[in-house]
Amino acid sequence: MAEYKAPLRDMQFNLFELFDYEQHWQSLPPYQDCSRDVAEAIIGECAKFSENVLAPLNQSGDKEGCRWEDGQVFTPKGFKEAYQQYIEAGWPSMEHSPEYGGQGLPSSLGLLLSEIKGTANWSWNMYPGLSHGAMKTLMAHGTEEQKEIYLTKMVSGEWTGTMCLTEAHCGTDLGMLRTKAEPNADGSYSISGTKIFISAGEHDMAENIIHIVLARLPDAPAGTKGISLFIVPKFNVSDSGDIIDRNGVNCGSIEHKMGIHANATCVLNFDNAKGYLIGEPNKGLNAMFTFMNTARLGTALQGVAHAEMGFQKSLEYARERLQMRSLSGPKNPEGPADPIIVHPNVRRMLLTQKAFAEGGRMLINYCGKLVDTIDGGEEDAAKEADQKLAFITPIAKAFLTEVGFESANLGMQCFGGHGYIAEWGAEQNVRDCRISMLYEGTTGIQALDLLGRKVLMSQGEVMKPFTKEIHVFCKENEDNPLVPQLAAANKRWGELTMEIGMKAMDNKDEVGAASVDYLMMSGYITLGYFWALAANKAQAVLDAGTGEEAFYEAKIKTANFYFARILPRIETLATTMVSGADNLLALDSEDFSF
Amino acid sequence: MAEYKAPLRDMQFNLFELFDYEQHWQSLPPYQDCSRDVAEAIIGECAKFSENVLAPLNQSGDKEGCRWEDGQVFTPKGFKEAYQQYIEAGWPSMEHSPEYGGQGLPSSLGLLLSEIKGTANWSWNMYPGLSHGAMKTLMAHGTEEQKEIYLTKMVSGEWTGTMCLTEAHCGTDLGMLRTKAEPNADGSYSISGTKIFISAGEHDMAENIIHIVLARLPDAPAGTKGISLFIVPKFNVSDSGDIIDRNGVNCGSIEHKMGIHANATCVLNFDNAKGYLIGEPNKGLNAMFTFMNTARLGTALQGVAHAEMGFQKSLEYARERLQMRSLSGPKNPEGPADPIIVHPNVRRMLLTQKAFAEGGRMLINYCGKLVDTIDGGEEDAAKEADQKLAFITPIAKAFLTEVGFESANLGMQCFGGHGYIAEWGAEQNVRDCRISMLYEGTTGIQALDLLGRKVLMSQGEVMKPFTKEIHVFCKENEDNPLVPQLAAANKRWGELTMEIGMKAMDNKDEVGAASVDYLMMSGYITLGYFWALAANKAQAVLDAGTGEEAFYEAKIKTANFYFARILPRIETLATTMVSGADNLLALDSEDFSF
Repeated sequence: MAEYKAPLRDMQFNLFELFDYEQHWQSLPPYQDCSRDVAEAIIGECAKFSENVLAPLNQSGDKEGCRWEDGQVFTPKGFKEAYQQYIEAGWPSMEHSPEYGGQGLPSSLGLLLSEIKGTANWSWNMYPGLSHGAMKTLMAHGTEEQKEIYLTKMVSGEWTGTMCLTEAHCGTDLGMLRTKAEPNADGSYSISGTKIFISAGEHDMAENIIHIVLARLPDAPAGTKGISLFIVPKFNVSDSGDIIDRNGVNCGSIEHKMGIHANATCVLNFDNAKGYLIGEPNKGLNAMFTFMNTARLGTALQGVAHAEMGFQKSLEYARERLQMRSLSGPKNPEGPADPIIVHPNVRRMLLTQKAFAEGGRMLINYCGKLVDTIDGGEEDAAKEADQKLAFITPIAKAFLTEVGFESANLGMQCFGGHGYIAEWGAEQNVRDCRISMLYEGTTGIQALDLLGRKVLMSQGEVMKPFTKEIHVFCKENEDNPLVPQLAAANKRWGELTMEIGMKAMDNKDEVGAASVDYLMMSGYITLGYFWALAANKAQAVLDAGTGEEAFYEAKIKTANFYFARILPRIETLATTMVSGADNLLALDSEDFSF
Repeated sequence: MAEYKAPLRDMQFNLFELFDYEQHWQSLPPYQDCSRDVAEAIIGECAKFSENVLAPLNQSGDKEGCRWEDGQVFTPKGFKEAYQQYIEAGWPSMEHSPEYGGQGLPSSLGLLLSEIKGTANWSWNMYPGLSHGAMKTLMAHGTEEQKEIYLTKMVSGEWTGTMCLTEAHCGTDLGMLRTKAEPNADGSYSISGTKIFISAGEHDMAENIIHIVLARLPDAPAGTKGISLFIVPKFNVSDSGDIIDRNGVNCGSIEHKMGIHANATCVLNFDNAKGYLIGEPNKGLNAMFTFMNTARLGTALQGVAHAEMGFQKSLEYARERLQMRSLSGPKNPEGPADPIIVHPNVRRMLLTQKAFAEGGRMLINYCGKLVDTIDGGEEDAAKEADQKLAFITPIAKAFLTEVGFESANLGMQCFGGHGYIAEWGAEQNVRDCRISMLYEGTTGIQALDLLGRKVLMSQGEVMKPFTKEIHVFCKENEDNPLVPQLAAANKRWGELTMEIGMKAMDNKDEVGAASVDYLMMSGYITLGYFWALAANKAQAVLDAGTGEEAFYEAKIKTANFYFARILPRIETLATTMVSGADNLLALDSEDFSF
């Protein structure tokens, strides 16, 4: 059995049939060279690399884990070599500016490649993934000199990067962070403090690691308005980019954790480490936020990745495992029992995974177009795309990771008792997935961002472009059998937003009390829209005639499943989200247990 | 921080206020000595042992795991010593017949003790737990001689037992099993074959292990009607109960699995091992089924155990962790931030765990009374209890483990990123819990048992005593504010059963298509009943006057939470369960992916 097979046909459908990416790229000046042929060739190569090099290291990497020794971290067998192949093939430079050695390809394509690499081996892909985040920050906020010294080597992949935000006493609440930055006479800073949960914070895959660190200047105001951003390289670097000597940053330990064992989660001790300010003093958190949406999309992807992986594994098992007879009569009368895929409940579990994997991919690919437009579109279009993305991102991040985890668990469930055993890989998929609902802002934090900071703060304005898009689709496709249910859900979305907004005027805790249910409902409706789009497109292709009937019919049947079995989840959510804050707040903190 | 604190006040409420256990035990001849004082003393001792001896070994046991060496299995440090203390205190004999050295205490008490021990350390408690299952089988089906030789030593705890059912190619579908039993001239049998997933199948805690093994006689009919049950001791034993020599059963390996690392999951190779028939030839599966309900209750408990453990850990963290301010204004203005328990979404996660842990405990304690009545009641009462238990058991097993897993995950979620780190124990709680939805019959199998084999096969008769009980409660308590919602849900339960029954007459696959949703709905309504009962009782106590107002008010507030935020889940389930088999069966097996 192959560990992983990239779902190329499905990606092709999304990009070139559903979302018309060819025309999209043509319309954006920086991406006009990105034709369908170019994109498909790149995707195909990435699929080969991921299937042949990364996927075979996924299970061994989990088993072996990272090893910490005297401040050094050793990645599992094969990881270093895979990374070497990766940089030799030029993958790290894909989406970065040609000015610094990049290939200038669109972010949407990068997101797609991340899905492929990440599904094959999430732990491995976090090393270049974190580096990508650091590069984006440097690109947006670094000086020309900083970019030349650091960015060029990161784009080539010779060096990697990290993001150092969290401290032991603050994750969500970064305003409390304590790491200090003291100015030196030469214009640099001395950084001191301890950061935790630094993914890829130390490893043996690259000769230098460029840490992007949040810290406080001596005169900084308290809270989030006193945080600045610094470059702190593991090895100090000369102006010509040569490594000089070791800087005062050390990996104190790595965490023992539930999953992503092959990615080093580091405690980093900064002891008068030399650092360089990026952007303006005390504006560090703002600088971080500029690329927060794209970073969160990278985590949203993880939901899709584990749903896809769980689906592939459990589908193969369900077709082969013989156990019991179908209730409606034997389907494999020659064999000792029927393959378990005949059982309706096994199909329910498989279709749920399929609907979330493919539906989540549509959502990500939709967001990819927005990111491209922000990066390369005209000002008005970019602004519009940015607003839409700001609204959709917390939904994508929290919803896709929640349903990704559900999917990973259903994938495991299809294996029966064997699912609990390491050798099948289904349980690793669950463990690796579990972090996605926690890092880059928990589900609860995304839900507050969506409902509080975005929807209600804008009095609903921020959601209108998207709900209007759904409304227009419904109007234009009234004959589609899924449309009445979608239109009703979309309408209900608006009404419930109003209702919660009214309640929140009396009591701000109503926002928190409704938030997660609201976010999940938003996700189900959003995916409902994409499934209706897909079914609509598939029907049009079938009507026009195609040699791939089964593929398009499968899209329609999966959409039907989604509307019959998944979208009705909003019924319960619509009730619970407006049940009020009182049922949560009535109990005194000390009366939760006796 | 204590690793675990037994919820004694809650147990007291269930037993002696809600379910009137004192009167219940008094009414059953074998249990008349089990007074409230006796029971509370035993429970208190068990809590001490579990808190002080078992709980401290839970995390270290997970980390160290079991070690296999040349067919021997070594349990983690401290396990053997804890077991020694356990047998010295006489715990294994608690519920067993005085004829064989037991103390003859009621099973309901045993279930309660299992919850306490199992929450403290599920992996450890599986060793005596499996032994208990083997003892029950021997007691029900063994000959007098077999009981004298084997049971006595198991009741004392000197020996342990296992249940050997599963083979690599069959778990659910035991009709396919291949292990052979050839008769010997001396009346014994030679057992050959390989069993997998044998929990506690080999270990270093007891001097002998008595395997109860399913195998086929040479002339056995195919399928489930050709399976017989055998005793196969690890060491052969003389008629006087002395160990003679090693039998032909060996542990080939232990599984690497997601959790319960400290419990050995063994591959057992039987190579002409000497075995002894239990009960009649070819009736082995029936013999197993006689105690299946109680064995499944033991697994249902696991859902409660992990919900309780997750709740205790996350409640403590939520009270201490300072992060962000309450949206409705600071609640801890002197501190740098508010404790996260002020945030409504954190409370939602805590209350969900609390509602499932306490609600699940009520369900188990309710079932405990039924088990006692089956074991020690008069014939008619026993039969009635048996039918009720047969109906409730698949609900308890599947529903409580599903919501137990949800709870364990919510517990972990309360910790934010720290939840993913091993040292807090929240992720172990998730991993350990995950098996409960798989073994002893998956959720899907329980759902078919409930809806297909029980409810529809009896044309709904089997559910009536329970739904009638709810109906009577509603009638008698019309003033209780929760009753209208409960009565409506109970009515809907009946209607949906009819509706599915009608559909199933046309197409048997409608049963499988509805089954899991039906089971989960049944669970939510069942727990709704118990929460209404609890609120009702608490209100009565408050009305009468009490010095423990906060305790009883917490019961009412948690019930209100359950009715507002959890019970509405049946709205979605009521829609999806009758959405038909077609949305699951329409897609051809080969068209699930392209």
